[in-house]
Amino acid sequence: MKDIHIGMIGYKFMGKAHSNAYRSLPMFFPQATKPHMSVICGRDSKQVEQAAEQLGWAEHVTDWQDLIARPNIDLIDINAPSNMHKEIALAAVQAGKHIFCEKPLALSLADSREMLAAAKQAGIVHMIGFNYRFSPAVRLAKKLVDSGRLGKIHHFRAWFLQDWLLDPHFPLVWRLQKEIAGSGSHGDLGAHLIDLAHYLVGDMKEVIGMSETFIKQRPLATEMTGLSAKGNQDGPQGEVTVDDATLFMSRFVNGALGSFEATRFAAGHRSTNSFEINGSLGSVKFDFERMNELEVYFTSDEADTQGFRRVVATDAVHDYMDAWWPPGHTIGFEHTFIHEMLELMNAITEERQASPNFEDGVKCQAVLEAVERSIEERRWIDIADM
Amino acid sequence: MKDIHIGMIGYKFMGKAHSNAYRSLPMFFPQATKPHMSVICGRDSKQVEQAAEQLGWAEHVTDWQDLIARPNIDLIDINAPSNMHKEIALAAVQAGKHIFCEKPLALSLADSREMLAAAKQAGIVHMIGFNYRFSPAVRLAKKLVDSGRLGKIHHFRAWFLQDWLLDPHFPLVWRLQKEIAGSGSHGDLGAHLIDLAHYLVGDMKEVIGMSETFIKQRPLATEMTGLSAKGNQDGPQGEVTVDDATLFMSRFVNGALGSFEATRFAAGHRSTNSFEINGSLGSVKFDFERMNELEVYFTSDEADTQGFRRVVATDAVHDYMDAWWPPGHTIGFEHTFIHEMLELMNAITEERQASPNFEDGVKCQAVLEAVERSIEERRWIDIADM
Amino acid sequence: MKDIHIGMIGYKFMGKAHSNAYRSLPMFFPQATKPHMSVICGRDSKQVEQAAEQLGWAEHVTDWQDLIARPNIDLIDINAPSNMHKEIALAAVQAGKHIFCEKPLALSLADSREMLAAAKQAGIVHMIGFNYRFSPAVRLAKKLVDSGRLGKIHHFRAWFLQDWLLDPHFPLVWRLQKEIAGSGSHGDLGAHLIDLAHYLVGDMKEVIGMSETFIKQRPLATEMTGLSAKGNQDGPQGEVTVDDATLFMSRFVNGALGSFEATRFAAGHRSTNSFEINGSLGSVKFDFERMNELEVYFTSDEADTQGFRRVVATDAVHDYMDAWWPPGHTIGFEHTFIHEMLELMNAITEERQASPNFEDGVKCQAVLEAVERSIEERRWIDIADM
Amino acid sequence: MKDIHIGMIGYKFMGKAHSNAYRSLPMFFPQATKPHMSVICGRDSKQVEQAAEQLGWAEHVTDWQDLIARPNIDLIDINAPSNMHKEIALAAVQAGKHIFCEKPLALSLADSREMLAAAKQAGIVHMIGFNYRFSPAVRLAKKLVDSGRLGKIHHFRAWFLQDWLLDPHFPLVWRLQKEIAGSGSHGDLGAHLIDLAHYLVGDMKEVIGMSETFIKQRPLATEMTGLSAKGNQDGPQGEVTVDDATLFMSRFVNGALGSFEATRFAAGHRSTNSFEINGSLGSVKFDFERMNELEVYFTSDEADTQGFRRVVATDAVHDYMDAWWPPGHTIGFEHTFIHEMLELMNAITEERQASPNFEDGVKCQAVLEAVERSIEERRWIDIADM
Repeated sequence: MKDIHIGMIGYKFMGKAHSNAYRSLPMFFPQATKPHMSVICGRDSKQVEQAAEQLGWAEHVTDWQDLIARPNIDLIDINAPSNMHKEIALAAVQAGKHIFCEKPLALSLADSREMLAAAKQAGIVHMIGFNYRFSPAVRLAKKLVDSGRLGKIHHFRAWFLQDWLLDPHFPLVWRLQKEIAGSGSHGDLGAHLIDLAHYLVGDMKEVIGMSETFIKQRPLATEMTGLSAKGNQDGPQGEVTVDDATLFMSRFVNGALGSFEATRFAAGHRSTNSFEINGSLGSVKFDFERMNELEVYFTSDEADTQGFRRVVATDAVHDYMDAWWPPGHTIGFEHTFIHEMLELMNAITEERQASPNFEDGVKCQAVLEAVERSIEERRWIDIADM
Repeated sequence: MKDIHIGMIGYKFMGKAHSNAYRSLPMFFPQATKPHMSVICGRDSKQVEQAAEQLGWAEHVTDWQDLIARPNIDLIDINAPSNMHKEIALAAVQAGKHIFCEKPLALSLADSREMLAAAKQAGIVHMIGFNYRFSPAVRLAKKLVDSGRLGKIHHFRAWFLQDWLLDPHFPLVWRLQKEIAGSGSHGDLGAHLIDLAHYLVGDMKEVIGMSETFIKQRPLATEMTGLSAKGNQDGPQGEVTVDDATLFMSRFVNGALGSFEATRFAAGHRSTNSFEINGSLGSVKFDFERMNELEVYFTSDEADTQGFRRVVATDAVHDYMDAWWPPGHTIGFEHTFIHEMLELMNAITEERQASPNFEDGVKCQAVLEAVERSIEERRWIDIADM
Repeated sequence: MKDIHIGMIGYKFMGKAHSNAYRSLPMFFPQATKPHMSVICGRDSKQVEQAAEQLGWAEHVTDWQDLIARPNIDLIDINAPSNMHKEIALAAVQAGKHIFCEKPLALSLADSREMLAAAKQAGIVHMIGFNYRFSPAVRLAKKLVDSGRLGKIHHFRAWFLQDWLLDPHFPLVWRLQKEIAGSGSHGDLGAHLIDLAHYLVGDMKEVIGMSETFIKQRPLATEMTGLSAKGNQDGPQGEVTVDDATLFMSRFVNGALGSFEATRFAAGHRSTNSFEINGSLGSVKFDFERMNELEVYFTSDEADTQGFRRVVATDAVHDYMDAWWPPGHTIGFEHTFIHEMLELMNAITEERQASPNFEDGVKCQAVLEAVERSIEERRWIDIADM
Repeated sequence: MKDIHIGMIGYKFMGKAHSNAYRSLPMFFPQATKPHMSVICGRDSKQVEQAAEQLGWAEHVTDWQDLIARPNIDLIDINAPSNMHKEIALAAVQAGKHIFCEKPLALSLADSREMLAAAKQAGIVHMIGFNYRFSPAVRLAKKLVDSGRLGKIHHFRAWFLQDWLLDPHFPLVWRLQKEIAGSGSHGDLGAHLIDLAHYLVGDMKEVIGMSETFIKQRPLATEMTGLSAKGNQDGPQGEVTVDDATLFMSRFVNGALGSFEATRFAAGHRSTNSFEINGSLGSVKFDFERMNELEVYFTSDEADTQGFRRVVATDAVHDYMDAWWPPGHTIGFEHTFIHEMLELMNAITEERQASPNFEDGVKCQAVLEAVERSIEERRWIDIADM
């Protein structure tokens, strides 16, 4: 099959991760259709030129509409700021392009649904960037759940803990502004937990949450890239309009109980993305800071040697790992994106829908908004009412 | 000072733990006033006789009222089933005895308050069995919070996970019957978490919870002791009237966010009693399965070597540990009771109130009931309204 | 059966641990014959009187020969300094008493053999204080090895790491003087590792070692108790005549390879007593700082979920644990002594030899001395030549 | 500066790791001179063609001499089997090319010295593939040692544990044949430990070792790639001529004591490459299965909160990590090669010698052979005598 030609909009943190993934696919997954890194797009012409050079894109442009109009582009990769997702995606759908969209799908559930409906009608392949699904250890957890080896699921608890906002002098970056980011820790970190819950346990029936903004004023940002930024601590301040932390509880349709916490104020946790599932026949535990490992417990183990097994999911038997290094030789954060893009290439090649796709994005957005509504109205919200 | 003469009511799991504590005090804390193990009381005369012999009590009786009436008894230790606490405690107060009461203080907040009021009026020393406060590692956490070394507290999350009810054939013991136990995992396990939250973070403002009974019918118990029991899986069944799992969220008066989970259905967790505190200057993590350890993080550590420190809290500088073994030589579950009884002996000797006492029991009960009400009414409950 | 009457010589660190063990046996192992804490003996009459009071001994004396002469004493417990063991033990044998002797059995292999020969001829029950064998997790390791569940053993590696000598001002306690202690880290810590190797893997064929005294002069001690002591850092100094660290390699009779390290200079390790065994079918890992746990690996586990299991050896199925608390409720350092004394009481009652006994002490001493000779002669030493 | 043109000989496990490194450099370290992936060389023309395509090399050849003769090649990358290293390297030196050579430098110390002498005389940049030095956590350890924050070093212990040879049906791959591989676990795994010891602690004075081949006959291999292979377990067998496991002890010039173990028979360890350093002021621990972490202990920490810190070495302050992802987002095995090739590009650009280079390869080889001689002669070998 011919290469898949990609136009990518955005070139910061996610743009780099995606570029690296596209670039790495042919070396490690040579059987997959090749992604062709055709055009990269960004608002700042100088910066986007530099990005094209560094990240390995053939061309660079500053007008995304122009990019979408190009006939030789098969796939649009959207990792622009969240408030741009909808407009770009609808235009790409219009042009009949396949789409990879970073999470969150959009800033509102209504917008997300509009995007999904458009994508479905156009019959394109659409995918959303819930990259943590693509950790081999998470795939193993999924396999254990789906095969029934954990039995009936009773509990899911998950937390995504970071600490980069602890310093009150850290500036007001776009991730702290509701009009651009939609929400704070909830949409940025909690969204990943919600997707993992959907992926591993299933749909939720109802939720109730709470949130807090611990530091309400911050210096304006003078510079920002990725998660780092600079500001003048004695200069003008602006209001933080998103949550620093959001917690919620949920009841799943299958009867399991869920507990979720996302925060940027957990001192000592640079990026602890962790979950545990307890079933009637076993349990699993995962922590992204040790992403190559899954702790697994089976009630059927012999009585004298029951205990959580530290499975280092780097054997050939673990998803994706036969493409990498010998057992015990670990992979890192960026590999989740390589596996993600493998799924994307395969879906396009096999003319099937990708997973996770906009449907998963909509489901995630429904929970995010239900939690927000539950916080405003101080009561349980049924997901079916969203 | 003369020995403190004790009458103890109950002789199963907690009775053994208390007896061992009284017995061990003089060897390891010889400066404390000696507890005199005078009389043990239980309903079954044969069993209580055997218990007296095994646990080292001078006398044994079957009538607790008779025991309370004895003039030479200074202290009544109540570890009978929870539904007996109130009646016994009020009688002991009436008789002017000091009281140690296992948690929960009573089956209802109203009863708890009645007990506290009576105890206060009588001027006795009263204490409640929140033994986890007496782990040296927990004391270290308290010291770090109180001294400001963790800064302003943002998060408290805690979970008490057990798995002894996973087997559907496990019988209907008294801990699964509401009229005796009051509640299930919530009052048994959650109560400890709530007390640790009060101890370490402070009072709560409001709570909302959820709970579940995963297995609603169980075989009647034919025999039970401690946490183990036997039943006939083909025999008659009875209804489980308490929760198998209860989760709740809370907002603390000081603005911190709390997350709590208590369950007896977490496969692989025999007894994981764990919490984490995140403050503006640092964090601590604790897990009772590794009770000699506290993980401690400080934001002020050098930038290149910041990380959670695994503090093995067995040095002489750690509370209680100069009485035990050299550094690195660990203690176990039972030691929390020895330290607890040290506080009790010291409070009586120094003619001051013990800590934790009935006031802490009432505060815990208020939260327990607020959570229950929040579950019934499906809304946030203000602790002040209880 | 009638109680076993004990005379104990020594009352410091080990004296306290033994007393606590004797005192605790009837409460937790009521089926065992009761130890009667008859007489405690020490050189300082004031201190031994205080020890008798605190540790719960009926009488106290200052003359150990007088103690041994008493007809109503069944068992002599020797925890005096190491250079006293032989003389006391031979006298006790002479008097027909059963003997519990702390390790090391004596300061030389020749002396150890003399003690063993005398004990055997007298037909007494003799035991040596290798207490770590009595950790439930270590018993589990033994069970897995003996039952063949680990297959043929390839590797044993062990290290006992402490750090209490790092400070150059720490004084010259008796443990640092060859004429009293025999050796330093080698005999104190390494001896435990050697015994665990014998217990778990079997006899050694040959050894070669190396050692070092990092700090050769220290202030004289003005006060010492247990492992702690005081000295005047500006006062007179004395020579350290024992090793600060000793390492050695061994080949076992069964073909396994062994690696051993004992040191008091491992910063951050208060008392890490750790070993790992690798067999053809599985492995185990143990660390005494987490003594309730054994990590266990089986090659026969399903290919996708192989990993070290963290077994919390506190279930009723684990040795000794049905006598203690519910699963997940841990025990500590002192419990190894309680289980050790249970074996001693049972051996006397059942009129059989105890395990470990003087034979194990001799075997340990043979390896200790072989290592020392290998260091002097800078070559491999065959154990059979000792 | 113009790109550095590379000719690479070998295309299996290491060939893939190197190719990925060259390919990744420009994206993550754009300031470095670009490696140009010019020519790949291998004996099998079909396979090398496929490798060139998959790994991204512009050309492919089967004759390495032809490759070396090309004038436009700046650097020869040697990852052919170990027994080819010397001949290729000498030819490359002759041709004035810079050289990157995988470890081991050669099959003998004499050969290694010859290679070093030739390289020095020619004035080329030479580097050897001790990739583990390039883990950010290992760099942190180095920084702590060099800056004196660990004080005087007392102990270094290291083990490299794998388990891929446990199965007796695993075939006789080239790594098990002395004439090709030189040695077994010793040269393959132990060499890395020796280099880390040199890097972190310094030169050794003397060594003594032991080794074993647990399974002496294996089925001939019918197919092999990377560390995996196939064989017919009922077919003809061949002799394993290398060690399955080698242990040794060393004394460092600076007085530290070393302990080393390399084995392919440690059940449950896919690839545990681990070391610990104990100094007078602190300690560090490293395990490559958790390569993003370094455990660090300082004696100067406050008395109540001393403990090993789990440093997740992914902050911008850690070597190389500002080029990667935000804090807490981990890297994997392959990144050590990217950092290694960065050093290589920089050395060539800056016209300085690379580190580690052939000198380090010779030093490693001297220790490897000293250990082998100590095993044959059953005595300590002085490194100065090699």
